[in-house]
Amino acid sequence: MNNELPSILLDRAVGELAQLPGIGRKTALRLVLHLLKQDEERVLSLSDAIVRMKKEICYCERCHNISDNHLCPICANNSRATGVVCVVEGIKDVVSIEKTAQYKGVYHVLGGIISPMEGVAPSDLNIESLIHRIKKEEIKEVILALSTTMEGDTTNFYIYKKMKGLPVKITTLARGVAHGDELEYADELTLARSIKHRTLYEDTLAI
Amino acid sequence: MNNELPSILLDRAVGELAQLPGIGRKTALRLVLHLLKQDEERVLSLSDAIVRMKKEICYCERCHNISDNHLCPICANNSRATGVVCVVEGIKDVVSIEKTAQYKGVYHVLGGIISPMEGVAPSDLNIESLIHRIKKEEIKEVILALSTTMEGDTTNFYIYKKMKGLPVKITTLARGVAHGDELEYADELTLARSIKHRTLYEDTLAI
Repeated sequence: MNNELPSILLDRAVGELAQLPGIGRKTALRLVLHLLKQDEERVLSLSDAIVRMKKEICYCERCHNISDNHLCPICANNSRATGVVCVVEGIKDVVSIEKTAQYKGVYHVLGGIISPMEGVAPSDLNIESLIHRIKKEEIKEVILALSTTMEGDTTNFYIYKKMKGLPVKITTLARGVAHGDELEYADELTLARSIKHRTLYEDTLAI
Repeated sequence: MNNELPSILLDRAVGELAQLPGIGRKTALRLVLHLLKQDEERVLSLSDAIVRMKKEICYCERCHNISDNHLCPICANNSRATGVVCVVEGIKDVVSIEKTAQYKGVYHVLGGIISPMEGVAPSDLNIESLIHRIKKEEIKEVILALSTTMEGDTTNFYIYKKMKGLPVKITTLARGVAHGDELEYADELTLARSIKHRTLYEDTLAI
Protein backbone atom coordinates (compact mmCIF):
# COMPACT_ATOMS: atom_id res chain seq x y z
CA MET A 1 0.00 0.00 0.00
CA ASN A 2 1.22 3.46 -0.87
CA ASN A 3 1.72 5.87 2.00
CA GLU A 4 -0.01 8.79 0.36
CA LEU A 5 -2.76 7.49 -1.91
CA PRO A 6 -5.54 5.18 -0.75
CA SER A 7 -5.50 3.04 -3.90
CA ILE A 8 -2.81 1.19 -5.84
CA LEU A 9 -4.75 1.70 -9.08
CA LEU A 10 -4.88 5.44 -8.45
CA ASP A 11 -1.23 5.53 -7.47
CA ARG A 12 -0.18 3.70 -10.63
CA ALA A 13 -2.16 6.08 -12.89
CA VAL A 14 -0.68 9.09 -11.08
CA GLY A 15 2.80 7.61 -11.38
CA GLU A 16 2.44 7.04 -15.13
CA LEU A 17 1.11 10.55 -15.80
CA ALA A 18 3.77 12.14 -13.59
CA GLN A 19 6.44 10.78 -15.97
CA LEU A 20 5.24 13.15 -18.71
CA PRO A 21 7.33 16.31 -19.12
CA GLY A 22 6.14 19.27 -17.04
CA ILE A 23 3.67 17.17 -15.03
CA GLY A 24 4.41 16.59 -11.36
CA ARG A 25 2.60 14.25 -8.97
CA LYS A 26 0.26 17.02 -7.83
CA THR A 27 -0.89 17.85 -11.38
CA ALA A 28 -1.05 14.14 -12.22
CA LEU A 29 -3.38 13.57 -9.26
CA ARG A 30 -5.60 16.44 -10.41
CA LEU A 31 -5.79 14.96 -13.92
CA VAL A 32 -6.51 11.46 -12.63
CA LEU A 33 -9.29 12.65 -10.30
CA HIS A 34 -10.74 14.57 -13.26
CA LEU A 35 -10.70 11.40 -15.38
CA LEU A 36 -12.39 9.47 -12.57
CA LYS A 37 -15.32 11.87 -12.78
CA GLN A 38 -15.67 11.45 -16.56
CA ASP A 39 -17.73 8.80 -18.35
CA GLU A 40 -15.91 5.56 -19.02
CA GLU A 41 -16.37 6.15 -22.76
CA ARG A 42 -14.43 9.41 -22.56
CA VAL A 43 -11.53 7.75 -20.75
CA LEU A 44 -11.45 4.87 -23.25
CA SER A 45 -11.43 7.37 -26.09
CA LEU A 46 -8.41 9.19 -24.62
CA SER A 47 -6.57 5.94 -24.07
CA ASP A 48 -7.39 4.67 -27.56
CA ALA A 49 -6.28 7.93 -29.21
CA ILE A 50 -2.86 7.72 -27.55
CA VAL A 51 -2.30 4.04 -28.30
CA ARG A 52 -3.49 4.25 -31.91
CA MET A 53 -1.34 7.29 -32.54
CA LYS A 54 1.72 5.50 -31.16
CA LYS A 55 1.05 2.29 -33.10
CA GLU A 56 -0.19 3.60 -36.43
CA ILE A 57 1.50 6.92 -37.04
CA CYS A 58 4.22 6.97 -39.67
CA TYR A 59 6.72 9.48 -40.97
CA CYS A 60 6.83 11.14 -44.38
CA GLU A 61 9.43 9.27 -46.44
CA ARG A 62 10.54 12.50 -48.08
CA CYS A 63 10.74 15.09 -45.28
CA HIS A 64 10.39 12.94 -42.09
CA ASN A 65 7.40 14.96 -40.92
CA ILE A 66 4.71 13.06 -39.04
CA SER A 67 2.10 11.63 -41.38
CA ASP A 68 -0.76 9.18 -41.73
CA ASN A 69 0.57 8.10 -45.16
CA HIS A 70 3.92 7.60 -46.85
CA LEU A 71 3.89 11.27 -47.89
CA CYS A 72 2.86 14.03 -45.47
CA PRO A 73 0.08 16.47 -46.50
CA ILE A 74 2.67 19.18 -47.21
CA CYS A 75 4.85 17.04 -49.51
CA ALA A 76 1.73 15.63 -51.17
CA ASN A 77 0.39 19.15 -51.84
CA ASN A 78 1.04 20.05 -55.49
CA SER A 79 0.70 23.77 -54.88
CA ARG A 80 3.76 23.94 -52.58
CA ALA A 81 7.06 25.18 -54.00
CA THR A 82 9.15 22.00 -53.92
CA GLY A 83 12.31 23.93 -54.90
CA VAL A 84 12.56 25.54 -51.45
CA VAL A 85 13.30 23.31 -48.43
CA CYS A 86 13.08 24.62 -44.87
CA VAL A 87 15.28 22.58 -42.50
CA VAL A 88 13.81 22.36 -38.98
CA GLU A 89 14.62 20.52 -35.77
CA GLY A 90 11.25 18.93 -35.12
CA ILE A 91 7.59 18.55 -35.98
CA LYS A 92 6.63 21.36 -33.58
CA ASP A 93 8.65 23.77 -35.75
CA VAL A 94 6.73 22.69 -38.87
CA VAL A 95 3.48 23.43 -37.02
CA SER A 96 4.79 26.84 -35.87
CA ILE A 97 5.93 27.91 -39.35
CA GLU A 98 2.73 26.61 -40.98
CA LYS A 99 0.72 28.75 -38.56
CA THR A 100 2.35 31.92 -39.95
CA ALA A 101 0.84 31.03 -43.38
CA GLN A 102 3.84 32.84 -44.91
CA TYR A 103 5.79 29.85 -46.19
CA LYS A 104 4.88 28.04 -49.38
CA GLY A 105 7.89 25.70 -49.72
CA VAL A 106 8.44 22.23 -48.24
CA TYR A 107 10.28 21.02 -45.13
CA HIS A 108 12.99 18.67 -43.97
CA VAL A 109 12.71 17.52 -40.35
CA LEU A 110 16.11 16.70 -38.80
CA GLY A 111 14.63 15.00 -35.72
CA GLY A 112 16.88 16.96 -33.34
CA ILE A 113 20.03 19.08 -33.33
CA ILE A 114 23.67 18.14 -32.81
CA SER A 115 24.31 18.13 -29.07
CA PRO A 116 27.45 16.47 -27.67
CA MET A 117 26.08 17.13 -24.16
CA GLU A 118 23.00 15.03 -24.84
CA GLY A 119 24.83 12.53 -27.03
CA VAL A 120 23.16 13.55 -30.30
CA ALA A 121 25.64 13.05 -33.16
CA PRO A 122 25.10 14.13 -36.80
CA SER A 123 24.48 10.48 -37.70
CA ASP A 124 21.43 10.45 -35.39
CA LEU A 125 19.78 13.16 -37.50
CA ASN A 126 18.19 13.10 -40.95
CA ILE A 127 21.13 14.96 -42.53
CA GLU A 128 22.22 12.31 -45.06
CA SER A 129 18.70 12.18 -46.49
CA LEU A 130 18.75 15.99 -46.82
CA ILE A 131 21.98 15.85 -48.88
CA HIS A 132 20.41 13.02 -50.90
CA ARG A 133 17.30 15.14 -51.56
CA ILE A 134 19.37 18.13 -52.69
CA LYS A 135 21.28 15.93 -55.13
CA LYS A 136 18.19 14.16 -56.45
CA GLU A 137 15.34 16.70 -56.36
CA GLU A 138 15.49 20.09 -58.09
CA ILE A 139 16.10 22.15 -54.97
CA LYS A 140 17.18 25.77 -55.39
CA GLU A 141 17.18 27.02 -51.82
CA VAL A 142 17.69 25.50 -48.38
CA ILE A 143 16.51 27.62 -45.44
CA LEU A 144 18.22 26.71 -42.17
CA ALA A 145 15.55 27.35 -39.53
CA LEU A 146 17.05 25.91 -36.35
CA SER A 147 17.05 27.38 -32.84
CA THR A 148 19.38 30.33 -32.37
CA THR A 149 21.31 28.45 -29.68
CA MET A 150 24.84 27.12 -29.70
CA GLU A 151 23.58 23.67 -30.70
CA GLY A 152 21.49 25.22 -33.48
CA ASP A 153 24.48 27.18 -34.75
CA THR A 154 26.68 24.07 -34.65
CA THR A 155 24.12 22.07 -36.63
CA ASN A 156 23.70 24.92 -39.15
CA PHE A 157 27.45 24.98 -39.70
CA TYR A 158 27.70 21.19 -40.04
CA ILE A 159 24.96 21.15 -42.68
CA TYR A 160 26.48 24.17 -44.40
CA LYS A 161 29.81 22.37 -44.74
CA LYS A 162 28.14 19.15 -45.92
CA MET A 163 26.34 21.08 -48.68
CA LYS A 164 29.42 22.92 -49.90
CA GLY A 165 29.82 22.54 -53.64
CA LEU A 166 26.17 21.64 -54.20
CA PRO A 167 24.36 24.05 -56.52
CA VAL A 168 21.95 25.35 -53.88
CA LYS A 169 21.41 28.70 -52.15
CA ILE A 170 21.66 28.43 -48.37
CA THR A 171 19.77 30.96 -46.29
CA THR A 172 18.87 31.27 -42.63
CA LEU A 173 16.09 32.95 -40.65
CA ALA A 174 16.50 36.69 -40.08
CA ARG A 175 17.69 37.46 -36.57
CA GLY A 176 16.68 40.70 -34.96
CA VAL A 177 14.60 42.38 -32.33
CA ALA A 178 11.42 40.37 -31.73
CA HIS A 179 7.99 41.92 -32.20
CA GLY A 180 7.01 43.67 -28.96
CA ASP A 181 10.55 43.75 -27.54
CA GLU A 182 11.92 46.90 -25.96
CA LEU A 183 15.35 47.85 -27.31
CA GLU A 184 16.57 48.46 -23.78
CA TYR A 185 16.28 44.76 -23.00
CA ALA A 186 17.57 43.33 -26.28
CA ASP A 187 20.98 41.66 -25.99
CA GLU A 188 23.97 43.23 -27.76
CA LEU A 189 24.45 40.51 -30.36
CA THR A 190 20.79 40.64 -31.42
CA LEU A 191 20.86 44.43 -31.59
CA ALA A 192 24.16 44.43 -33.51
CA ARG A 193 22.77 41.97 -36.08
CA SER A 194 19.51 43.82 -36.40
CA ILE A 195 21.40 47.02 -37.24
CA LYS A 196 23.76 45.31 -39.68
CA HIS A 197 20.92 43.52 -41.47
CA ARG A 198 18.50 46.45 -41.35
CA THR A 199 15.67 46.25 -43.87
CA LEU A 200 13.92 48.83 -46.05
CA TYR A 201 11.05 50.28 -44.05
CA GLU A 202 8.78 49.90 -47.08
CA ASP A 203 9.37 46.14 -47.04
CA THR A 204 8.11 45.87 -43.47
CA LEU A 205 4.75 47.41 -44.29
CA ALA A 206 3.47 44.22 -45.97
CA ILE A 207 3.56 42.05 -42.83
CA MET B 1 -7.18 16.83 -43.04
CA ASN B 2 -6.58 19.22 -40.18
CA ASN B 3 -5.23 22.65 -41.04
CA GLU B 4 -2.58 22.69 -38.38
CA LEU B 5 -1.37 19.17 -37.77
CA PRO B 6 -0.09 16.87 -40.52
CA SER B 7 -1.78 13.76 -39.13
CA ILE B 8 -5.34 12.92 -38.10
CA LEU B 9 -4.04 10.41 -35.53
CA LEU B 10 -1.86 13.10 -33.99
CA ASP B 11 -4.64 15.62 -34.08
CA ARG B 12 -7.05 13.25 -32.33
CA ALA B 13 -4.56 12.48 -29.53
CA VAL B 14 -3.86 16.20 -29.06
CA GLY B 15 -7.59 16.93 -29.01
CA GLU B 16 -8.26 14.29 -26.36
CA LEU B 17 -5.43 15.45 -24.09
CA ALA B 18 -6.41 19.11 -24.52
CA GLN B 19 -9.76 18.31 -22.87
CA LEU B 20 -8.00 17.71 -19.55
CA PRO B 21 -8.14 20.61 -17.09
CA GLY B 22 -5.23 23.04 -17.35
CA ILE B 23 -3.92 21.49 -20.58
CA GLY B 24 -4.19 23.54 -23.75
CA ARG B 25 -3.50 22.42 -27.32
CA LYS B 26 0.11 23.58 -27.11
CA THR B 27 0.87 21.55 -23.99
CA ALA B 28 -1.10 18.60 -25.40
CA LEU B 29 1.05 18.65 -28.54
CA ARG B 30 4.21 18.69 -26.42
CA LEU B 31 2.96 15.69 -24.41
CA VAL B 32 1.94 13.78 -27.53
CA LEU B 33 5.29 14.38 -29.26
CA HIS B 34 6.98 13.21 -26.07
CA LEU B 35 4.91 10.02 -26.08
CA LEU B 36 5.79 9.44 -29.74
CA LYS B 37 9.46 9.31 -28.76
CA GLN B 38 8.85 6.77 -25.98
CA ASP B 39 8.84 2.97 -26.36
CA GLU B 40 5.49 1.49 -27.29
CA GLU B 41 5.52 -0.46 -24.02
CA ARG B 42 5.68 2.78 -22.03
CA VAL B 43 2.71 4.25 -23.91
CA LEU B 44 0.68 1.05 -23.47
CA SER B 45 1.47 1.10 -19.76
CA LEU B 46 0.19 4.69 -19.40
CA SER B 47 -2.97 3.88 -21.33
CA ASP B 48 -3.57 0.69 -19.35
CA ALA B 49 -3.08 2.45 -16.00
CA ILE B 50 -5.72 5.04 -16.85
CA VAL B 51 -8.26 2.55 -18.19
CA ARG B 52 -7.81 0.05 -15.34
CA MET B 53 -8.10 2.80 -12.76
CA LYS B 54 -11.33 4.02 -14.34
CA LYS B 55 -12.82 0.51 -14.68
CA GLU B 56 -11.69 -1.14 -11.45
CA ILE B 57 -11.44 1.56 -8.82
CA CYS B 58 -14.15 1.58 -6.19
CA TYR B 59 -15.15 3.77 -3.29
CA CYS B 60 -14.96 2.99 0.41
CA GLU B 61 -18.48 2.01 1.49
CA ARG B 62 -18.00 3.74 4.82
CA CYS B 63 -16.29 7.09 4.04
CA HIS B 64 -16.58 7.30 0.20
CA ASN B 65 -12.81 7.68 -0.15
CA ILE B 66 -11.24 6.08 -3.23
CA SER B 67 -10.26 2.50 -2.57
CA ASP B 68 -9.23 -0.78 -4.18
CA ASN B 69 -11.51 -2.68 -1.79
CA HIS B 70 -14.86 -2.16 -0.10
CA LEU B 71 -13.10 -0.43 2.80
CA CYS B 72 -10.34 2.16 2.20
CA PRO B 73 -6.94 1.68 3.89
CA ILE B 74 -7.80 4.38 6.45
CA CYS B 75 -11.16 2.86 7.50
CA ALA B 76 -9.57 -0.60 7.50
CA ASN B 77 -6.73 0.57 9.75
CA ASN B 78 -7.46 -0.55 13.34
CA SER B 79 -5.12 2.01 14.89
CA ARG B 80 -7.17 4.99 13.65
CA ALA B 81 -9.51 6.73 16.10
CA THR B 82 -12.90 5.84 14.62
CA GLY B 83 -14.69 8.18 17.05
CA VAL B 84 -13.44 11.28 15.21
CA VAL B 85 -14.68 11.93 11.66
CA CYS B 86 -13.18 14.64 9.47
CA VAL B 87 -15.64 15.83 6.81
CA VAL B 88 -13.89 16.88 3.57
CA GLU B 89 -14.96 17.91 0.10
CA GLY B 90 -12.89 15.46 -1.93
CA ILE B 91 -10.18 12.83 -2.10
CA LYS B 92 -7.47 15.46 -2.64
CA ASP B 93 -8.26 16.85 0.81
CA VAL B 94 -7.81 13.42 2.39
CA VAL B 95 -4.40 13.21 0.72
CA SER B 96 -3.47 16.72 1.94
CA ILE B 97 -4.50 16.05 5.55
CA GLU B 98 -2.82 12.63 5.58
CA LYS B 99 0.42 14.30 4.47
CA THR B 100 0.48 16.41 7.65
CA ALA B 101 0.65 13.15 9.66
CA GLN B 102 -1.17 15.03 12.47
CA TYR B 103 -4.59 13.43 12.16
CA LYS B 104 -5.36 9.99 13.56
CA GLY B 105 -9.15 9.90 13.07
CA VAL B 106 -11.17 8.80 10.02
CA TYR B 107 -12.77 10.72 7.15
CA HIS B 108 -16.06 11.29 5.38
CA VAL B 109 -15.78 12.43 1.76
CA LEU B 110 -18.75 14.56 0.65
CA GLY B 111 -17.86 14.42 -3.04
CA GLY B 112 -18.28 18.21 -3.48
CA ILE B 113 -19.77 21.22 -1.75
CA ILE B 114 -23.19 22.82 -2.03
CA SER B 115 -23.06 25.26 -4.95
CA PRO B 116 -26.28 26.62 -6.45
CA MET B 117 -24.17 28.30 -9.17
CA GLU B 118 -22.83 24.95 -10.36
CA GLY B 119 -26.05 23.08 -9.68
CA VAL B 120 -24.75 21.04 -6.74
CA ALA B 121 -27.57 20.42 -4.25
CA PRO B 122 -27.25 18.80 -0.79
CA SER B 123 -28.79 15.63 -2.23
CA ASP B 124 -25.85 15.30 -4.67
CA LEU B 125 -23.45 14.97 -1.74
CA ASN B 126 -22.78 12.17 0.75
CA ILE B 127 -24.53 14.01 3.60
CA GLU B 128 -27.29 11.47 4.36
CA SER B 129 -24.68 8.74 4.81
CA LEU B 130 -22.78 11.02 7.22
CA ILE B 131 -25.90 11.45 9.38
CA HIS B 132 -26.45 7.68 9.16
CA ARG B 133 -22.87 7.05 10.30
CA ILE B 134 -23.22 9.42 13.26
CA LYS B 135 -26.40 7.65 14.36
CA LYS B 136 -25.00 4.15 13.90
CA GLU B 137 -21.29 4.34 14.73
CA GLU B 138 -19.92 5.60 18.03
CA ILE B 139 -18.80 8.99 16.78
CA LYS B 140 -17.86 11.63 19.35
CA GLU B 141 -16.54 14.44 17.17
CA VAL B 142 -17.17 15.67 13.63
CA ILE B 143 -14.53 18.04 12.23
CA LEU B 144 -15.84 20.19 9.39
CA ALA B 145 -12.82 20.69 7.12
CA LEU B 146 -14.25 22.33 4.01
CA SER B 147 -12.83 25.21 2.00
CA THR B 148 -13.12 28.62 3.70
CA THR B 149 -15.24 29.93 0.82
CA MET B 150 -18.89 30.93 0.70
CA GLU B 151 -19.83 27.49 -0.66
CA GLY B 152 -17.79 25.84 2.09
CA ASP B 153 -19.48 27.96 4.76
CA THR B 154 -22.93 27.17 3.33
CA THR B 155 -22.20 23.44 3.36
CA ASN B 156 -20.81 23.63 6.90
CA PHE B 157 -23.99 25.34 8.07
CA TYR B 158 -26.25 22.85 6.26
CA ILE B 159 -24.47 19.91 7.88
CA TYR B 160 -24.45 21.69 11.26
CA LYS B 161 -28.24 22.11 11.12
CA LYS B 162 -28.75 18.50 9.96
CA MET B 163 -26.72 17.23 12.92
CA LYS B 164 -28.54 19.35 15.52
CA GLY B 165 -29.72 17.20 18.41
CA LEU B 166 -27.28 14.40 17.69
CA PRO B 167 -24.92 13.67 20.61
CA VAL B 168 -21.78 14.72 18.78
CA LYS B 169 -19.26 17.54 19.16
CA ILE B 170 -18.92 19.63 15.99
CA THR B 171 -15.62 21.41 15.39
CA THR B 172 -14.06 23.17 12.43
CA LEU B 173 -10.52 23.89 11.28
CA ALA B 174 -8.78 26.81 12.99
CA ARG B 175 -8.74 29.90 10.83
CA GLY B 176 -5.92 32.37 11.19
CA VAL B 177 -2.83 33.84 9.67
CA ALA B 178 -1.11 31.22 7.50
CA HIS B 179 2.46 30.15 8.11
CA GLY B 180 4.76 32.60 6.30
CA ASP B 181 2.11 35.30 5.87
CA GLU B 182 2.89 38.92 6.62
CA LEU B 183 0.29 40.54 8.89
CA GLU B 184 0.20 43.58 6.62
CA TYR B 185 -1.35 41.51 3.83
CA ALA B 186 -3.76 39.40 5.92
CA ASP B 187 -7.42 40.31 5.36
CA GLU B 188 -9.39 41.87 8.21
CA LEU B 189 -11.68 38.90 8.84
CA THR B 190 -8.77 36.48 9.11
CA LEU B 191 -6.89 38.84 11.40
CA ALA B 192 -9.97 39.48 13.56
CA ARG B 193 -10.55 35.73 13.98
CA SER B 194 -6.92 35.02 14.70
CA ILE B 195 -6.95 37.58 17.50
CA LYS B 196 -10.24 36.35 18.93
CA HIS B 197 -9.14 32.69 18.86
CA ARG B 198 -5.58 33.37 19.98
CA THR B 199 -3.77 30.33 21.37
CA LEU B 200 -1.35 29.84 24.24
CA TYR B 201 2.16 30.39 22.93
CA GLU B 202 3.32 27.27 24.73
CA ASP B 203 0.87 25.18 22.71
CA THR B 204 2.40 26.34 19.44
CA LEU B 205 5.87 25.11 20.35
CA ALA B 206 4.96 21.48 19.73
CA ILE B 207 4.37 21.85 15.96
